[in-house]
Amino acid sequence: MAFNHKHILGIEQMSPEDIALILDTAESFKEVSLRPIKKVPTLRGKTIINVFFEASTRTRTSFEIAGKRLSADTVNISASTSAVVKGETLEDTARNLEAMKPDIIVMRHSCSGAPHYLAERCDFSVINAGDGAHEHPSQALLDILTMRQHKGQIEGLTVAIIGDITHSRVARSNVYALHKLGANVRLCGPGTMLPPGIERLGARVFHRIEDAIHGADVVMMLRIQQERQGKTMLPSLREYAMFFGLNPERMKLAKPDAIVMHPGPMNRGVEIASSVADGNQNVILHQVENGVAVRMALLYLVSGGEKLEDSAQ
Amino acid sequence: MAFNHKHILGIEQMSPEDIALILDTAESFKEVSLRPIKKVPTLRGKTIINVFFEASTRTRTSFEIAGKRLSADTVNISASTSAVVKGETLEDTARNLEAMKPDIIVMRHSCSGAPHYLAERCDFSVINAGDGAHEHPSQALLDILTMRQHKGQIEGLTVAIIGDITHSRVARSNVYALHKLGANVRLCGPGTMLPPGIERLGARVFHRIEDAIHGADVVMMLRIQQERQGKTMLPSLREYAMFFGLNPERMKLAKPDAIVMHPGPMNRGVEIASSVADGNQNVILHQVENGVAVRMALLYLVSGGEKLEDSAQ
Amino acid sequence: MAFNHKHILGIEQMSPEDIALILDTAESFKEVSLRPIKKVPTLRGKTIINVFFEASTRTRTSFEIAGKRLSADTVNISASTSAVVKGETLEDTARNLEAMKPDIIVMRHSCSGAPHYLAERCDFSVINAGDGAHEHPSQALLDILTMRQHKGQIEGLTVAIIGDITHSRVARSNVYALHKLGANVRLCGPGTMLPPGIERLGARVFHRIEDAIHGADVVMMLRIQQERQGKTMLPSLREYAMFFGLNPERMKLAKPDAIVMHPGPMNRGVEIASSVADGNQNVILHQVENGVAVRMALLYLVSGGEKLEDSAQ
Repeated sequence: MAFNHKHILGIEQMSPEDIALILDTAESFKEVSLRPIKKVPTLRGKTIINVFFEASTRTRTSFEIAGKRLSADTVNISASTSAVVKGETLEDTARNLEAMKPDIIVMRHSCSGAPHYLAERCDFSVINAGDGAHEHPSQALLDILTMRQHKGQIEGLTVAIIGDITHSRVARSNVYALHKLGANVRLCGPGTMLPPGIERLGARVFHRIEDAIHGADVVMMLRIQQERQGKTMLPSLREYAMFFGLNPERMKLAKPDAIVMHPGPMNRGVEIASSVADGNQNVILHQVENGVAVRMALLYLVSGGEKLEDSAQ
Repeated sequence: MAFNHKHILGIEQMSPEDIALILDTAESFKEVSLRPIKKVPTLRGKTIINVFFEASTRTRTSFEIAGKRLSADTVNISASTSAVVKGETLEDTARNLEAMKPDIIVMRHSCSGAPHYLAERCDFSVINAGDGAHEHPSQALLDILTMRQHKGQIEGLTVAIIGDITHSRVARSNVYALHKLGANVRLCGPGTMLPPGIERLGARVFHRIEDAIHGADVVMMLRIQQERQGKTMLPSLREYAMFFGLNPERMKLAKPDAIVMHPGPMNRGVEIASSVADGNQNVILHQVENGVAVRMALLYLVSGGEKLEDSAQ
Repeated sequence: MAFNHKHILGIEQMSPEDIALILDTAESFKEVSLRPIKKVPTLRGKTIINVFFEASTRTRTSFEIAGKRLSADTVNISASTSAVVKGETLEDTARNLEAMKPDIIVMRHSCSGAPHYLAERCDFSVINAGDGAHEHPSQALLDILTMRQHKGQIEGLTVAIIGDITHSRVARSNVYALHKLGANVRLCGPGTMLPPGIERLGARVFHRIEDAIHGADVVMMLRIQQERQGKTMLPSLREYAMFFGLNPERMKLAKPDAIVMHPGPMNRGVEIASSVADGNQNVILHQVENGVAVRMALLYLVSGGEKLEDSAQ
């Protein structure tokens, strides 16, 4: 099956077949990270630039490790050293990078649509590593891979996503993916954190966490950004934990074999109790592990991906 | 022809033959960045440390990519993590790096002469990536290469350099190079930005941009550092644009086939109008593209450079 | 002889045989950095993550160069980009890194015991690159290697360590190592910088620098952290230099062939006079040079270390 995308901008543009191909490719790359020599020559001589206009540990590290395990040359640019602080436009920054002939730019940006803007204008492949409150496709793909590994298939699953839906690119990308693959998606959070009209994306909205979790196969908790505390959206972390935090009693409302997910970094005791985060239903670290494999798959597929049989086997 | 320089400190020390050899070597490296596998084994097992005491995206990234495409191991050190903030002298920092046996240190420093100071005292090769308001030789070399590609030869060209000449290491290195190669150099900027005595370097000084551009083959605009606005040197950006900005009308004064250059990052609407920056006379991105090739050539030549036929062909 | 440690947490846990094996391995790696191609394939395909929660130039660079010369893939994470600033626990950060399947985490942390905490909980090898005021084992090992090279053996040496003993992980690791190997250790500093009970580690305490240095084979000066000046511990740098700084007159009290050491970065004119720092008894840059070799040895030994004969010879 062929992968026809030069860029990975969001899940919204993907077909169910695209998603399946990415997940299957990621599965085949997973064992590379378990070998004594964790490296295949697949992308040798390719240049990948990780441009992170917002700080990130795990996503940047995950992409960097994925690139290195494929033998690509990886270069990091962070916001603080960027020419943007000298008043350069995003397009000029991108065209300057383009002139250095990179193969792939992995970009995180605080503005929704920034990666799309570049993809339309530049030669290199763009992978969106999170754009504003819009999409975070590699996160959703690793989430879906984790669900598929634990639940066999996505179709028919009931997935509850709890938290600040409005500002969550993780939620948005997951809603797109889950809806395309036939899952029942439930969204829940304080009224100030639920965007009006979100039902149009194929999700049902719940106002009580108990109703959202009830009978779910997957409970995905979103990170509360503590800097919003005290603003109108979030009166206090204690209240948030009381009304929307995942604790063992609430978890009992889900199916007995339900799994608990979180994109990290976690605020233990706020959106998730430690006993749940560390409990035997949590698959949080499987998500991170799948992250490297999914990112290897994305880097490989946007590069053309013809030689998987030779190099990764 | 042999290259006898262990260091690249400035254009001032170079002969016309040195410059020609660097440009020819850069030309032969350009195609490496266009290959499917953008990498030659030329500097395998060499250690290059990029020490940037001033922030930079494009120069550091360009050197890092150049080093990686030559298969060197590259290590980055930035000002904020540097021992300098703990009160160490530059010489002690350098001697500490020297003890780790690097082959090349690429250094940007806010003090003029800092790379020369190290070159006299340390074993490794030093490449000056910009020292204060003194020199930025790799920038001038990529500028000259770009002019040579578009104009055939440098001798006899009329090159107008417009902006803050006093604080521009780019201008200074270009004046040295252009004068050595037989170009006619014109410098223009507000009186506060023109150093007295600059004519001694072989340039003519103009006070009106129209006069400087008139009949020029090359118009090189310098970046205005916005942080100087409101100080005595620069009353306002609007006035600067009005009196010294490059716009389409002024560009008509140059030769019909003149090229427009800018070292970046650009302040669109200040020193250069967007219609000129994006117009068909601009070669700004050719400059950046040549930057990687020139830096590959510099890294290669200071390393001894005996094996170009074998590895880069 | 076998090396049975998966982690390098501190000198306290090491036997004299462990230390000897590390030093011997480091000696055999030293020549790698002197080759034209400074690289052995020993750790090809291994992933090393340098996690520095405190800024550092020399230690991070030394570990990064050591990793690259062993052909490992190295990834850097610094405090400012870390998820820790988003409220994540150290254990969660570590488990996330673990899920990306690194082989070795090199960690510097401001809290004593942080590396031990991870080593108990995670799969990867941990190398302590400095934890609070506790230990800095790679520094002590390179110090001991330097002493052994200059003095033949450690047993019976008289080593004076002068400075802020209380806050120095360098001092603590050296005291452990020197005591295990049979040296006579003397500690000296202002009363506020000498922890009560330090004699239990096998050292003698001196209050006058002249007494501490008298007849010593090795004089090791510690860095004064200038930010403590004006606090209760340190009235002024001038007074410190007067009472505890190493100058040529004081150095005459040591044995004629005594060596001078400093872990860097140095405050010239404070804890050490420039004439001593640059004098012919100083071995300060030998320490740094040995640093890369010792770190190569540590990375190699915690990785299993079976193939040294094949790859490093």
